[in-house]
Parts: sequence; C-alpha cells; structure tokens
Amino acid sequence: MNFLEGETMKLEKIAALIGGKLKGDGAVEISGVGNIEQAREGHITFLNQKKFRPALSRSRAAAVLVEEALDTAIPQVIVASPELAFARLLRKFHPDPKSQAGIHNRALVGENVKLGAQVTLSAGVCIGDDVEIGDHVHLYPGVVVGERCRIGNHTVLHPNVTLYRDTELGDHVILHAGAVIGADGFGYTPDENGAHYKINQIGKVVIEDHVEIGANSCVDRATLGITRIKRGTKIDNLVQVAHNCTVGEHSILVAQAGVAGSCTLGHHVMLAGQVGVTDHLTLGDHVTVAAKAGVFRNIAKHRAHGGTPAIPLDVWRKYATALPKLPELIHKIRNLEKRLKEIENDSSSR
Amino acid sequence: MNFLEGETMKLEKIAALIGGKLKGDGAVEISGVGNIEQAREGHITFLNQKKFRPALSRSRAAAVLVEEALDTAIPQVIVASPELAFARLLRKFHPDPKSQAGIHNRALVGENVKLGAQVTLSAGVCIGDDVEIGDHVHLYPGVVVGERCRIGNHTVLHPNVTLYRDTELGDHVILHAGAVIGADGFGYTPDENGAHYKINQIGKVVIEDHVEIGANSCVDRATLGITRIKRGTKIDNLVQVAHNCTVGEHSILVAQAGVAGSCTLGHHVMLAGQVGVTDHLTLGDHVTVAAKAGVFRNIAKHRAHGGTPAIPLDVWRKYATALPKLPELIHKIRNLEKRLKEIENDSSSR
Amino acid sequence: MNFLEGETMKLEKIAALIGGKLKGDGAVEISGVGNIEQAREGHITFLNQKKFRPALSRSRAAAVLVEEALDTAIPQVIVASPELAFARLLRKFHPDPKSQAGIHNRALVGENVKLGAQVTLSAGVCIGDDVEIGDHVHLYPGVVVGERCRIGNHTVLHPNVTLYRDTELGDHVILHAGAVIGADGFGYTPDENGAHYKINQIGKVVIEDHVEIGANSCVDRATLGITRIKRGTKIDNLVQVAHNCTVGEHSILVAQAGVAGSCTLGHHVMLAGQVGVTDHLTLGDHVTVAAKAGVFRNIAKHRAHGGTPAIPLDVWRKYATALPKLPELIHKIRNLEKRLKEIENDSSSR
Repeated sequence: MNFLEGETMKLEKIAALIGGKLKGDGAVEISGVGNIEQAREGHITFLNQKKFRPALSRSRAAAVLVEEALDTAIPQVIVASPELAFARLLRKFHPDPKSQAGIHNRALVGENVKLGAQVTLSAGVCIGDDVEIGDHVHLYPGVVVGERCRIGNHTVLHPNVTLYRDTELGDHVILHAGAVIGADGFGYTPDENGAHYKINQIGKVVIEDHVEIGANSCVDRATLGITRIKRGTKIDNLVQVAHNCTVGEHSILVAQAGVAGSCTLGHHVMLAGQVGVTDHLTLGDHVTVAAKAGVFRNIAKHRAHGGTPAIPLDVWRKYATALPKLPELIHKIRNLEKRLKEIENDSSSR
Repeated sequence: MNFLEGETMKLEKIAALIGGKLKGDGAVEISGVGNIEQAREGHITFLNQKKFRPALSRSRAAAVLVEEALDTAIPQVIVASPELAFARLLRKFHPDPKSQAGIHNRALVGENVKLGAQVTLSAGVCIGDDVEIGDHVHLYPGVVVGERCRIGNHTVLHPNVTLYRDTELGDHVILHAGAVIGADGFGYTPDENGAHYKINQIGKVVIEDHVEIGANSCVDRATLGITRIKRGTKIDNLVQVAHNCTVGEHSILVAQAGVAGSCTLGHHVMLAGQVGVTDHLTLGDHVTVAAKAGVFRNIAKHRAHGGTPAIPLDVWRKYATALPKLPELIHKIRNLEKRLKEIENDSSSR
Repeated sequence: MNFLEGETMKLEKIAALIGGKLKGDGAVEISGVGNIEQAREGHITFLNQKKFRPALSRSRAAAVLVEEALDTAIPQVIVASPELAFARLLRKFHPDPKSQAGIHNRALVGENVKLGAQVTLSAGVCIGDDVEIGDHVHLYPGVVVGERCRIGNHTVLHPNVTLYRDTELGDHVILHAGAVIGADGFGYTPDENGAHYKINQIGKVVIEDHVEIGANSCVDRATLGITRIKRGTKIDNLVQVAHNCTVGEHSILVAQAGVAGSCTLGHHVMLAGQVGVTDHLTLGDHVTVAAKAGVFRNIAKHRAHGGTPAIPLDVWRKYATALPKLPELIHKIRNLEKRLKEIENDSSSR
C-alpha cells in the first residue's frame, strides 16, 4: 500500500504500520517525509544520532522517529532503527514509478527468447537469441542483452547497460546506467615474441537476488567457471570486479573500489571508496577496509584494515598521525648521535 | 567570426582581434595555430613558460604569442595570457563543427516534450515525457533523457549519455560520452535480518551553466534535495560525485577523482587525478588537493593538501621525501640504544 | 582448425599441435581444457608453478601441460610455456563465436562510408559520414562511430562503444562495452574573469593493431596531434588515458589505472591496478609500477616502482614494512633523549 500525492495519514496509523511505539499526539496528520533540516510542516523526520538532537528543535517536522523516547513536545514514534523506519516510510510516500509494461516497436528481440509477464522492453533495447526474462522486468532504452542471458523477476536494467552472453541475473536485481556485466576478464600470457596472447574468457557472471550495481561499474566474466556476486550485495558507481571473483552476501563496495582477479570476499564485507584489492586474496566475513586502502594480503574475518599496504586500522591510524613528525625525527636522531658521540669521546679520552 | 579552411589573416589583424600588442612584421600571413614543436610554416604559436624559450628558436612558427617582448626576430604579439590568446585563436581556426539541426526519424520523443529552436536529436535518442529542451541543443546517438528533465540552451550531450528523470542541465553544458547523471545515490540501512534496505533516492541533480563533464563520469541524484554542480565547473573522465554533494563554481575535478556523499566544495576548488574525499566534508574556496590524495577532514579555504590521509602539502612533501630513510632510522635508533646502554652500565658500575 | 562440440583428440596429436614433447600414454582422448581444480575427466590442464604440484594429484585431468617432466603417472606434454600452450588449446576447444555478417536494417550508415567484406553492423549502430571500415569488422548494438573514423580489419566493438570523430583503429582491435575513444582532452586556461576557457581539442586518437581496451575505459583525443596506443598493448576496464599520451607497444594497463596528459610510456610497460601517473612524465621500456602507486617523476627503463610518491619497489617495500613501527620509534627517541639528558646533566654536574 502506497500513499498517493497529497494523501496524509495519522501518526498513530504510521506507528502501527512500522511497528513503533507512539509518544505524544497520535492524531497529527503526516503528509510526507524529510530529513531533519529539510522536513516541512506535516513531515515526519528521524533522529539517528544524538549529535543531531539540537537540530531537532529547529526542525519544522510534525513528528520524529527515535530510538529512545525524547523529552520534547514533538510527537514521537519509538522504533529499533529510526533510519530503517524512515526508509520504509520514504518508500510509501515516494514509491518507485510504475512502468507501463510492453514491448516497444523499436525494441529488438532475438530468436527463442522467453519473456515473462509484465515485461517492459523500451525503444532501442536489443535482446540476443535464447535469452530468458522473468516477470515484471524493466529494460530501459539502449540496454543490450547477449545470447543465452537469464534475467530473474522484478529486475531493472537502466539505460545503456550491457550484459555479455551467458550472464545470469537473479530476482530484484538493479543495474544502473552504463554498467557492463560479463566483459572478458583481463587475461593474457606472453607468447614467443613478447606479445600478449589473449586467454579466451569462456566463463560467465552470476549476479544473485537483490544485488544492486552502480552506474558504469564492471563485473568481468570468469576465464573458466563463474564470477559471482552473491545475494543482497550492493555495488556503487565505477567499481571494478575482475574475473573469477566471488563477492559474498550483503557486502558493500563503495564507488571506484576495485577487486582484482580470483579474489574471494566473505559476506558483509565493506570496501570503502577507491579501495583496491590485489589478485587471489581472501577477505573474511565482516571485513571492513577504509577508504583508499590498498590490500595486498588476506584479511581474517571481522578485521578492519586501512592504508597502503593495508594493515589493521588502529595501527594505520597511529602511524598516519605520526607521519608528519618524521622529518623532525630524523633531525632529533642526528642530534642524539652527535651528543652521544661527544659523551663517548669524552669518556674514552678520560 | 571563424576562419575557413585555407583562409589566412595578417598578424596585425590577429593582434587587434585578441587585444595584443604587435612587435615585428605585422604583415605576416597567419594560416593556423600550433604548439611550439608542431607549428608549421604560417602558424602562430605561444610561449607560456621561460623554459620553452630554447624550443622557440627551433620552431617553424611564423609568429608567437608572448607575455613579455622577446629579443628575437620572430614577430610577436604581447598579451596578458599567451595561452588564453592561443586558445581563442585555436577556436577561430578550428571552430566546433556546425550540426545540422533536426529530429532524426529514429529519435524517439515522449509526450508533452518542449523542444527549442535548432535542436538536433540524432538517431537512437530517447526522450521521456514532460521534458523541456532549449535552443541549439545537440543530442548525439544513444542519448537517453528521463522524464521531466530540463536541458538549457546550447547544451551538447555526446553519445550514450544517460540523464535519469528530473535532471536539470543549464546552458552551454557539455556531457561527454557515457556520462550518467542522476543515478540513485548509494544509500542503504540495515534491516532486521542484516540485509541492506534501499533508501529510495527521490532528490535530483542540477548541473549549472558552462559545466563540462567527462566521459563515463557519474553524478548521483540526492536522497532528498539536490546534488548540484555549480556554474563553470569542469569535471574530467571517470569521476564520481555522490549524492547530496555541492561542487562550487569554477572548480576542477580531474580524472578518476571521487567525492563521497554530502560533501560541499567551494568555488575554484581543484581536485587532481584519483583524489578521494570522504563523506560529509567541506572544502573551502580555492582548495587544491594533490593527485592521489585521500581527504578525511575538512580543508579551510586557500589551502593545498596532499597525501593519505591528506595534510598540508608542504608537510606531506617533507615526510614523503623522508620516508625512504625510515628503515635506516630504525637501525640508527637501535644503535643509539645500545651505545647509550653501555654508557649507562659503565657509569652505574663506577 | 577448431574443435567442435563433443569432439575429442588424442594426446599425441595435441602434443604435435602445440609443438610439445609427449611423456606417457599418447592415446588418451582429450575432450576439453580446464584449470587444475576444475578440470573434468578427459580434460587437459596445465601446471605453471611448482606450488600447484600437490593440486595435480587431486585433479581429475586426463593429461597435463608442464615445463619439465614430472615423476607422475599422469600423461604429460612438455612445452616451453604451459600457460601459452593451454591458452592455445583453450581457443581451439572454445573458439570465438562466428558472427553472421550483415547490415541490420536498424543500423544507420552515414554518407560516403566504405564498408569492407563480411562486416557486421548490429541494430542501433550509428556510423557517421566519411567513415572507412575494414573486412570482418563486428560492431555490436549501440556502437556510435563519429565522422571520418577508420576501423581496420577483424576489429570488434562491443555494445555502446563510442568513437569520436577522426579516431583510427588498427586491425584486430577489441574495444569492450562502454569504452569511449576520442572524447575531448581535459584542457582549459583561465580567462580574465577566473573562469576556465575551454581549449578546443582538435587532435585525434590512434589505436594500433592488436590493442584491446576494457569496458568503460577512456582514451582522450589530443589537443593538437595524436594520442596513440601502440601495437599489442592491453588496457583493462575503467582506465583513463589522457590527451597527448603515447603508450608504447605491448604494454599493460590494469583496471582503474590513469595516465595524465602528455605522458610517454615505453614498450612492455606494466601499470598495475589503480596506478596513477601525473602529466608530462616519461616511463621507459619495461617499467613496472606496483598496484595503487602514484608516479610523480620519470622512471628509467627496466625499473620497478611502488608507493606514493613512487620510488624503487625494494625501497618502498622496506619502508612500508617499517611504517607500523613509527609510533614506537617516536616513543623510543623520547626515551633516548631523556636518558641522554640525564647523563649530560650528570657529567656536567661532576
């Protein structure tokens, strides 16, 4: 059930909807959602961290989602995760636009293609032979789907996405504009003349359910076997996942991160922006890597690393803080050496 | 007024055209422009730095743009910025190709679309409903424009550019091939089962006048509100600007730079190549960040930073130079400790 | 000669085919190829490094390509490079799919276009005026080719590739999906009002024979003159090559590497993933740069560098290992200073 434009709902109903506990006037009519600075009259907002508490008094919001009851006049709904409750309400008030299913007469569909129910194929879409597409799939203009690809239900491919042949996408997958799935892995071997002989890449890519991949990101096909992005993993823009990698469930790869060939990432791994991981490494479950780090070794599960080469985060932070003192240290050591020399000379001359 | 193929112009006329002061023979016919190594006979070149002075004597150029009069036989035009004068002449001799306005019969235009005068819609262009397009706009093949986008006058979208719904582009904007504007910001919150619940991104992107964005770069839509690139800013290829950022006027983001969510950059900021800026930071006006730096803290205006984590550029340069000495320092300290120990033992045994 | 589905070949014939020396039963029928873990019965595998030796005993492979004869029952073919022999067999057993040449009725071809024999132009391809295309060229859907481009024989452009005007591609070039060749170099000069005046980029890009360029990578056109990728060079995904660069023969640029303007790279240069090279540098032949390094100075040929700023790899490795000890060093120096002070005071008080 979603809200229509202009529709409102009493706060007590919202509390029930999201399974929260009401504190204050439940009869307030809520007309929308907004963050704490931008919320307008009638909006519900959320408070996630205590440091935003002062901002609440300045907010025009009519109600607030909180983790613990606040001593304030503004009506509250107490929930385990205010941000999650907010995200759910955001989706109610601003649901995804319904697409008008249908095959545009300028979409091109190959031979032996199976199309599910309520499929949208926009103008300029090209579907290769022997492709299978599930129900409620939406392909935006310029999407190209190679031969023998399989696309699950409720999956959305934004404009100009390319799927190379044999790629498999699960249900509820979202690929943003320009993403390229299944291009050849980067594999060569020197020939007798010092040229790079291309190793044909005959594997494929499997993207499991509920994965989202950002604009212009790339996931390469395996040399042999499968490059796999597991269920629930979210990948930002301009990310590179090389051939034969496995990225575990519910992981996060932030923008411009890169994972080299044949790496295995566990579940709930978090690579921050511009992180690089060299080839053939294993990162355990729940590993976190700080922004811009370069990982050259395996990381055991639940560890947080940073720096290049990456080391435990707390160690990195300590030496990173110490680094600016390095020129001064050199000076101090020279000074110590000089003074010590004097003492030594002094004592030997006695 | 632009030059036609093969047309020439007397140097005295060129001097007048660019507001420079002539020194030497003004009757020389100039037929084109070239840099100091590549200039051919009849070409005018420019000299920006004194270190290129020796190259001038080897150049075949017929005339030279300079900042201060040179003691040489080659005719000169003295201007405040030789490079700027050169760029202006370059554009005279090599104007942008005129496009033949018109709507190609394989362009697709939605309902309720307003098109200005002299618009070029190439084959394979897809325009959503309720879009407004200004005068002299050129959309190359494969460009996809979502619903309710607005595009100003004299704006050019190169092939396979994607604008998501509600994106606004100003006048004289240039988007290079594959750029993606308005894809969903990367926003999730953990749900009860450890999965990432998508926070719908209902904001938009506004690109102001005279902004240029490079090939395959991405600017994400705001969660709520606006991601904004202000007037005159130039963005190179493969750059990431995340949701809810504001990039000030006349800034420069060099290739593969990335700015995480909710950052505010001032005007005339310069991020060199592969720079990363973590989320929620503020960089003041005229801030410069050296190539490959990772910015983890706010930077006050007019400061230059470098390194990861980024610190003042002069400090970074000093410790970067000192770094290779670190293993030697460890050795020296060990040696000092040993020698000091001996003295201490010696003195205690006395 | 390629294998057909289900076809097998005796090992002695395979040995002859790849110029190797047989050891063991040459009558074994080989039905395919696989790496050491994935090889199935009837497959031939290869052993490149001694550390994989134990894996061989667990492999189901029917035969193995080796550099030196092994003391094992499994039939072997001894060759100079097992990986190269494997890559050749891989291509025999899994040849590139044959494309059915022809011009799709939804491909758009400009005026004065020369098309070679056996050309495939897919739906949604747009070819500008005055383009020349060689024999056996395959352009996938959504490829856009600007005016006056030239494309050599046996060249493949994957979906949604963009070639700007005047780009030249050699023979046997492969461009992966979303690659952009010939976008404007990133060149501006300050005008009188502090705005960035665009320097028109009137040069072009030349990609020589046997070059492969990855998905969503960018090679910019020169300001004046040529940006050139020389014969046999392989470029991975999301790589940036800026205007006026020359990349020498048989070089390797791994994913997300970036080369700033006017750099010259020699032949057999190897930039690992996420490497950055600042502008106007020269890297000699056979230079290797370790992953994530930032190169700020020229590098002489045959050198290996790492770190940011990049220095000789062995030095970088040493100080990188030493870095975590830095906070401890500071502590030790303070301690040394204190102890030395005591001795000095002691001796002066005597």
